[in-house]
Amino acid sequence: MKLKIGIIGFGRIGKIHYNNIAQQIEDAQVLLLADVNQDGLPQEVTLTDVDSLIDSPDIDAVVICSPTDTHADYVERCARAGKHVFCEKPLDLSLDRIEKTLAVLEETDIKLMLGFNRRFDPNFLKLRSLVQDGKVGDLQIVKITSRDPGPPPLTYLQSSGGMFLDMSIHDFDMARYMMGKRVVQVYAEASTLTGGDVEVAGDIDTAVITLRFEDGALAVIDNSRKAIYGYDQRMEVFGSKGMAKVENNAPDTHLYYGKNMVEASLPLNFFMDRYTDSYLAEMRAFVRACIDDTPVPVGAVDGKEAAKIAVAAIRSVRERKPVQID
Amino acid sequence: MKLKIGIIGFGRIGKIHYNNIAQQIEDAQVLLLADVNQDGLPQEVTLTDVDSLIDSPDIDAVVICSPTDTHADYVERCARAGKHVFCEKPLDLSLDRIEKTLAVLEETDIKLMLGFNRRFDPNFLKLRSLVQDGKVGDLQIVKITSRDPGPPPLTYLQSSGGMFLDMSIHDFDMARYMMGKRVVQVYAEASTLTGGDVEVAGDIDTAVITLRFEDGALAVIDNSRKAIYGYDQRMEVFGSKGMAKVENNAPDTHLYYGKNMVEASLPLNFFMDRYTDSYLAEMRAFVRACIDDTPVPVGAVDGKEAAKIAVAAIRSVRERKPVQID
Amino acid sequence: MKLKIGIIGFGRIGKIHYNNIAQQIEDAQVLLLADVNQDGLPQEVTLTDVDSLIDSPDIDAVVICSPTDTHADYVERCARAGKHVFCEKPLDLSLDRIEKTLAVLEETDIKLMLGFNRRFDPNFLKLRSLVQDGKVGDLQIVKITSRDPGPPPLTYLQSSGGMFLDMSIHDFDMARYMMGKRVVQVYAEASTLTGGDVEVAGDIDTAVITLRFEDGALAVIDNSRKAIYGYDQRMEVFGSKGMAKVENNAPDTHLYYGKNMVEASLPLNFFMDRYTDSYLAEMRAFVRACIDDTPVPVGAVDGKEAAKIAVAAIRSVRERKPVQID
Amino acid sequence: MKLKIGIIGFGRIGKIHYNNIAQQIEDAQVLLLADVNQDGLPQEVTLTDVDSLIDSPDIDAVVICSPTDTHADYVERCARAGKHVFCEKPLDLSLDRIEKTLAVLEETDIKLMLGFNRRFDPNFLKLRSLVQDGKVGDLQIVKITSRDPGPPPLTYLQSSGGMFLDMSIHDFDMARYMMGKRVVQVYAEASTLTGGDVEVAGDIDTAVITLRFEDGALAVIDNSRKAIYGYDQRMEVFGSKGMAKVENNAPDTHLYYGKNMVEASLPLNFFMDRYTDSYLAEMRAFVRACIDDTPVPVGAVDGKEAAKIAVAAIRSVRERKPVQID
Repeated sequence: MKLKIGIIGFGRIGKIHYNNIAQQIEDAQVLLLADVNQDGLPQEVTLTDVDSLIDSPDIDAVVICSPTDTHADYVERCARAGKHVFCEKPLDLSLDRIEKTLAVLEETDIKLMLGFNRRFDPNFLKLRSLVQDGKVGDLQIVKITSRDPGPPPLTYLQSSGGMFLDMSIHDFDMARYMMGKRVVQVYAEASTLTGGDVEVAGDIDTAVITLRFEDGALAVIDNSRKAIYGYDQRMEVFGSKGMAKVENNAPDTHLYYGKNMVEASLPLNFFMDRYTDSYLAEMRAFVRACIDDTPVPVGAVDGKEAAKIAVAAIRSVRERKPVQID
Repeated sequence: MKLKIGIIGFGRIGKIHYNNIAQQIEDAQVLLLADVNQDGLPQEVTLTDVDSLIDSPDIDAVVICSPTDTHADYVERCARAGKHVFCEKPLDLSLDRIEKTLAVLEETDIKLMLGFNRRFDPNFLKLRSLVQDGKVGDLQIVKITSRDPGPPPLTYLQSSGGMFLDMSIHDFDMARYMMGKRVVQVYAEASTLTGGDVEVAGDIDTAVITLRFEDGALAVIDNSRKAIYGYDQRMEVFGSKGMAKVENNAPDTHLYYGKNMVEASLPLNFFMDRYTDSYLAEMRAFVRACIDDTPVPVGAVDGKEAAKIAVAAIRSVRERKPVQID
Repeated sequence: MKLKIGIIGFGRIGKIHYNNIAQQIEDAQVLLLADVNQDGLPQEVTLTDVDSLIDSPDIDAVVICSPTDTHADYVERCARAGKHVFCEKPLDLSLDRIEKTLAVLEETDIKLMLGFNRRFDPNFLKLRSLVQDGKVGDLQIVKITSRDPGPPPLTYLQSSGGMFLDMSIHDFDMARYMMGKRVVQVYAEASTLTGGDVEVAGDIDTAVITLRFEDGALAVIDNSRKAIYGYDQRMEVFGSKGMAKVENNAPDTHLYYGKNMVEASLPLNFFMDRYTDSYLAEMRAFVRACIDDTPVPVGAVDGKEAAKIAVAAIRSVRERKPVQID
Repeated sequence: MKLKIGIIGFGRIGKIHYNNIAQQIEDAQVLLLADVNQDGLPQEVTLTDVDSLIDSPDIDAVVICSPTDTHADYVERCARAGKHVFCEKPLDLSLDRIEKTLAVLEETDIKLMLGFNRRFDPNFLKLRSLVQDGKVGDLQIVKITSRDPGPPPLTYLQSSGGMFLDMSIHDFDMARYMMGKRVVQVYAEASTLTGGDVEVAGDIDTAVITLRFEDGALAVIDNSRKAIYGYDQRMEVFGSKGMAKVENNAPDTHLYYGKNMVEASLPLNFFMDRYTDSYLAEMRAFVRACIDDTPVPVGAVDGKEAAKIAVAAIRSVRERKPVQID
């Protein structure tokens, strides 16, 4: 059996999912595509509008890659139409809206998987497996460094919900994923230090966020919108039996020894190069769960919990105090 | 325009080339396949016999992935049929036979590219570009470590022409490629230390080979058929202005700090994982050269020169002395 | 001229300073020693009591390595006796007491240098010089990981003033040193997760502390009293022009590739091995400043500022909120 | 008991040994010094001439740091005077002369230890211990990279016996030490590529030497007199159960991530910085062997064997063929 898929939104991330399914996932195929912009769409696929796509009896599942403010609506419509959904993060910028969508989902049997692709990155998977194998012991500190090479365009910034909901939300999900425990408190310290569009948008670009878990374990995330040396994605887990960390990936392993210094290559700079494997692996996992009727590895609740942390972080910065969760 | 390709031989390496062309090279497509074993062949492609494939007017180029002893014959037949050829290394185990094939090729306009895929590996490409950018200065020493995780099966060993023609030939090509100079002398020291099939086959499994270049620069290659920790592929270039080296690639970057030691992942163990990028890049380069009618980056002469070094190394071990080239 | 020195306290750290001066600092010599325990004292030196040592006309400077609760008193007595002082950190556990000592010092010309030895570590010095050379640009985030291999004995814990004043104070000084800016706010999240003596002492063993600087730059420190893999001392500085980080030091550089994994040596485990160079360098700096009558590189104000951060961190944990400085 | 030592020759290496004994080896002391140049000698020690030093009843052992052409003579005189000897390498440039000295030594009970200090380097010791613990299994390949930052002065070059006897001899000793087997054949390929004084002296500056051991195991050494990036000292051992390697040591562990590349510190550039620990450790080992009357860890036979390899390497280059040992 092949899973028949429709994709809504054929921008940067939509193309990644399309190519992965078309070229490398044998038990799935893309039949329908909906996008306002009709240029450069693949000829093998039928173009249609969102309504027709969601309601089409030809497809089993929908991959939602449209702008964030459409996510919740489309998910609900897919759910009502009996289509499984893979939706890019975040589900919505409002916790209330997310709750409403979850309520809709609960009345159906469809699967919703969220695009927290980093859970499928080989580096982070390795850390996770070390934790699960008990090699780290009881987790005490998780450290995440997550820095972008540069801020997104102003228009994107203005509708992004701010750095915590747009960018740090990946890290909040990661911290939860690694710890496997409940977050009870969030404290966020943030600044706007790089100027430019971020300042114009009234957003922050630099932050340190401390998460406290139910058993007293701590996670700390440091974020920047602008790392001049590229995309910086590292993690460390520390516990009673050891510590494990992963570094960035580079395009090659060279070391050059010159007259004055040793040189090496910068990390892979573009999120699509850095996380190539993870995008393929998450889509494979989604397809498999739909076909085998097993639970998806990243569900709607994960989206809600990450969003709760992001919202608490926003409040923490605004009120300059730690914020309790629940 | 799309380059129409036929593939002869659909074993391990034939499948790599097929998948790369079918999934990732947009300006080429595989139309015909020939293989004695008809199981597991892709349905999108027409199966045929070698003769029909080579003579088919539907294809522009042939990718030869059949056993070594068929290479020279198939290349010559392709040449006479006016088909461009991508042929796995080595062209043949006999220098005379290689010369004969080169003579046939010279009477035609077809392109022959040899599968020295390692030239297209990102690590080695980086070394090469550092050399070409002058950062290493005048090259004085090239060091290549090339060790397999384990020997091939006995039947393969017995028809392989021995370690130098089968395995080290990649390294001989690499040394030439990095140095960009003529090899004038070869000295090889070899042993059989790992026992098993290699010993049964009367082959060697451990060697250190020193190449002397026309200007006195030196290359040194160390080979083993059996590195218990996996596939070991490293290189270093040393010159008047600096040194550069590349390490193995690993599946992840993790470091685990336990009670007694720091642990990390072993190198990628399988040549197809280690050299994934290089197989795609070499085929892209072949397709591009055919379409644009530009020279192929690895030609028949490269195959002959590498084979000459291998044959000299065999003689050096047998006669226990350095052997001059030309 | 040789600087004549008396040492008060001949425990672990007193012995380090003694050996460094006696063996490796040519323009200084130790003439007097005072310690309650008279065993194992070097024969080349005259033993005396603290009062006589401080008042002795034979010495120019005093190195104070006695318990923390004697520091302020001895420093004041040395100041009144006209002796320069090198004092181990902290100056005192009470900010009021520190202020009082500073007032005494201000009435004299003597130099007081505090033993923040990590400022003299080659790794951290390199980070500092990269910052000062402008290679990091405007500093935005400083990250310090500082974990001990295990907690000190219970009696020590009980009189240590707690983890922030005893252990993290080094990191607070480092953050100030790297940033070169004023700390305006401290938020500390802490837990007791390792049990044992730390729990008995009512202390914490795990913490994440966020410092906010006057211009919005952030520093984050993570501490643990018990890292099973050893002494973990790393730092990272991130700014508008780049990032720089230093790793732990290991006793050797070996990598072992075995059948199942790559292994390396754990970091140097003992603070005296890890910081050997820094202890010598700080004492050289003190001796030089005394002889040349130049300012000491780490003064009383540095001790006060670090202590202020520690006290604020204690309050932050207790009151569960960020605490302003000044 | 303290071992009473006289030192002959107070140049660069003599000063290292003097300082190590005076400052850090508690069970030894230097009483006498002999050097033609009397400037800058330490005042704590009595200056004398070589004859008086060797014959002085006040000393138990002599450390010989004078020019190579005096070594054999002084060793013999010390032996006859009943003094233990620590002698810098090489014992002599002539195998015959070395044999003669060995014969003299055999008639006495004195200990002769040779200054192959690299055996005491923490990196190489770690490799050796991995080999001895069986983690590498049966050794099959040893690889040594040994490159100097620049050639010595012309006068030194002219009396050095050539690169193999002066510089590579350390590596020959190392290969023997790691392998723990007998060398049966040497093949050396060498060039003069860096010009300057080396060319004037008629010496070589670049070499690759292959050693064959009695069981077919191989060692390969690559040497250069001029590595522009500094002192390059690496080693690798490969066997049936694994591989281990050690890298260079650097003054710090920093990595700087800038706009265009990652930078790190060059290796420690000066042999005295690189091998500081090894000089102290070898002298401790000598003192201990003298006091405890146990065998020295590096004896006269080791000097002879390394010299035999060097002489064979010289012949191999001259005659362009492999040379058998014994």
